[in-house]
Order: sequence, then structure tokens, then C-alpha cells
Amino acid sequence: MQIAQTRLSIDTAPREIKEITAEVAQWTERQRISVGLLTLYIPHTSASLLVQENASPAVRRDLDAFLRRLVPEDVALYRHNDEGPDDMPAHIKSALTQTQLSIPVTDSRLQLGTWQGIFLLEHRASPHRRALVLTLIGDKA
Amino acid sequence: MQIAQTRLSIDTAPREIKEITAEVAQWTERQRISVGLLTLYIPHTSASLLVQENASPAVRRDLDAFLRRLVPEDVALYRHNDEGPDDMPAHIKSALTQTQLSIPVTDSRLQLGTWQGIFLLEHRASPHRRALVLTLIGDKA
Amino acid sequence: MQIAQTRLSIDTAPREIKEITAEVAQWTERQRISVGLLTLYIPHTSASLLVQENASPAVRRDLDAFLRRLVPEDVALYRHNDEGPDDMPAHIKSALTQTQLSIPVTDSRLQLGTWQGIFLLEHRASPHRRALVLTLIGDKA
Repeated sequence: MQIAQTRLSIDTAPREIKEITAEVAQWTERQRISVGLLTLYIPHTSASLLVQENASPAVRRDLDAFLRRLVPEDVALYRHNDEGPDDMPAHIKSALTQTQLSIPVTDSRLQLGTWQGIFLLEHRASPHRRALVLTLIGDKA
Repeated sequence: MQIAQTRLSIDTAPREIKEITAEVAQWTERQRISVGLLTLYIPHTSASLLVQENASPAVRRDLDAFLRRLVPEDVALYRHNDEGPDDMPAHIKSALTQTQLSIPVTDSRLQLGTWQGIFLLEHRASPHRRALVLTLIGDKA
Repeated sequence: MQIAQTRLSIDTAPREIKEITAEVAQWTERQRISVGLLTLYIPHTSASLLVQENASPAVRRDLDAFLRRLVPEDVALYRHNDEGPDDMPAHIKSALTQTQLSIPVTDSRLQLGTWQGIFLLEHRASPHRRALVLTLIGDKA
């Protein structure tokens, strides 16, 4: 059994739902693990992670529209408004999605489903450089 | 330290909240791990996982009713409607629940609480055969 | 590679969003792991876990207010009311947040972001003693 860890840097656009499957898969494949578990962790409170359908861009737009309706940017609803009207909704959207994802690995490959991609959700209205910590535990091939 | 991985197949009824605790516990117990961590992963984007109260069937009905009110099957709300009115709501319900669950194991047994069960949530309006990947990391007994 | 597991006991106030970062970090640091993954698991169905902003108490109040609006304590909405009007909302709030969190560890320290804390969310209207299972997998320093 082995463990490997790395930190990636991801640049986001405002409110972007950004697919990061390729970057994550490339690092994972280089570790040459026959059977393992990859864990992604995002050390931020206004951006989050999600496994979601990656074939249709309309799915991402509908998910974004749903989250905006559910968590409106209306300062009358929140007390924590000093970092802008998008900040408290960003914390809530992060709470409703994931800070961490674990995905099985077999023969160096992520066991994602046919329609699954890994996404980083930027919940702020401005671009950010986000960190992502990957930890891979498993048997070497 | 050891790692074991398997793939289960679960048949679901339309919109079923199906308890899968027994199947998952049986495989886990056969691995004879003294201290470990089991991770369940569902490689689908319109079905998801949840640990939830398993004593009262009314809890499941109330959870289902809540999710239907929160994410209505109303095609006017979504652009991604070509796979049916239940498809985009299924993706959103999956995003709000879990693609992955990790549960501690002690003396070959899942450390679930007294009232906890593991559930697979079928969010589509038709029956499906769903895959589930189990990865168990730990010390052999 | 090593695995360590422990069970903590956390006393909560009614509907408390309680920061537990210090207790979790202390146990983790004592295990002297150079590279690892810590998994927190809560064996309850009416309390849950979340990584969230820990600098401003207003963020916690806004998160609590959002969850109360989203999941009202209105017995007309639920069938499962025999354990009190706060019980079914507690199960739903648990479903929308986390039963489990995995956080990377480097040089014995949790890789939390600058503004991140670990929180236990008590969703019931009465105080409880809650259990928390910690599992740490990694290489010894």
C-alpha cells in the first residue's frame, strides 16, 4: 500500500462550473495504482466540488440556475454582507454541494461512470485561483 | 494494510429510495478487516447515495416529497429536457445528495449508528440497474 | 502505511452549529502522520458535518436561517411527526449536508484552508451527546 499527495491550482471564471476531469485523471494515471481510492479536497469555502453529467452543457446551466433560485443574492436575506452580495450565497452553495470527493481507481484509472465528470464550482462573482489537494491511496501496479 | 474492491449491481424501481445496508455489510464482513474504511461510489448522475434513518418508512416518503417540492419536474424550469421531465431534476437531486460515502469499519463491521441505513436513491421515473463500487482499506483481522 | 481510529464525544446545544476543529486537529496531530487522509463520520441521522467559513459568526447564523427557511418545522408538510416537529426537518437537513468528511493530512496537520473550520450541526431542538468516529490512514512520520 502506498500514498501519494499533490496540490493542483485551478483558475476559475466568475460563477464557472469548470470541468477538471482531465487534470485529475492525468495525475492519477501517472501514479500507476492497480487498486486504489482518490480523494479530492478543496480548501475553500466559496467554491466546491461535484461529480455531475458532463455530456450536455445545458445540464450545467440548469444546475447553476437552480442554485441561484435556491440561494438568491439578496442582501436582505443575510447578515454577512460585508464581502459582497455573492459571498454568503457562495458559502451556502458550498455547504449544499461537496468540499471533498472520493473516487475509486482501478488499473490507474478513475472509475467514473460513462456520463460523469468532476467539476469545480466557482460560486463567487469574480475569477479566482483555487487550490485542490489530491490524495491517492492504493497498491502499486 | 490491505485494499479490496468490488462492484455490486442494484436493481431499482422508479424513484425508489432503496435500502442497501445488508448487501454492503455482507461484502464488508467477508473481507475480515479489524480496522478500516469502506467507501461506496455510484458511477451514475441520476441516482445517488445517502445515509438516512431506516426505522420509519415515513421518513423516506417525507424525504422524497421534500426533494420533489424542491426540484419540481417542470420543463419550463430547465433547458435540458430531451431525456424527459424527470432527467434534469434527477441530476439536481444527485448534486444535493451524495455520489460517495465513506463509513468506518471495526472488527469487520460497519460503524453505522443505531438508526442509520445506507440508501441508494433512484431519481429517474423508470426502473434501472445501477452499479455501485465498494473500496475497503484497512488492516486484516 | 498505518491506520488509526478513535471515537470522540461532542455535547451540543439545541440547533448548535459547533466548531470541532480543535478536538479533531489535536487527535490527528498526536498520530504523527507525514502524509495521510482523515475521515470523520457521524453515526447519527439528525446531526451532520460540514466544512464551513469559521471567521464570522454571522455566516453560521445565515446558514442556520437558510436551512430553517428551506426545511420549515411545519407538521403539515411531513408524515413522520411522532418524534416532534423538529425531527423530520433534522433528517432532511442531515441529508442536504454531510454524514462524512475526508480531509488530507500533511506533516501531522489537517490541510484545511485559511478560512475553513470543521463543524458539527445539531439539527434537533434539544441538547445531545453526539459521537464522532475518526479514521486516519497514512504514512508515519
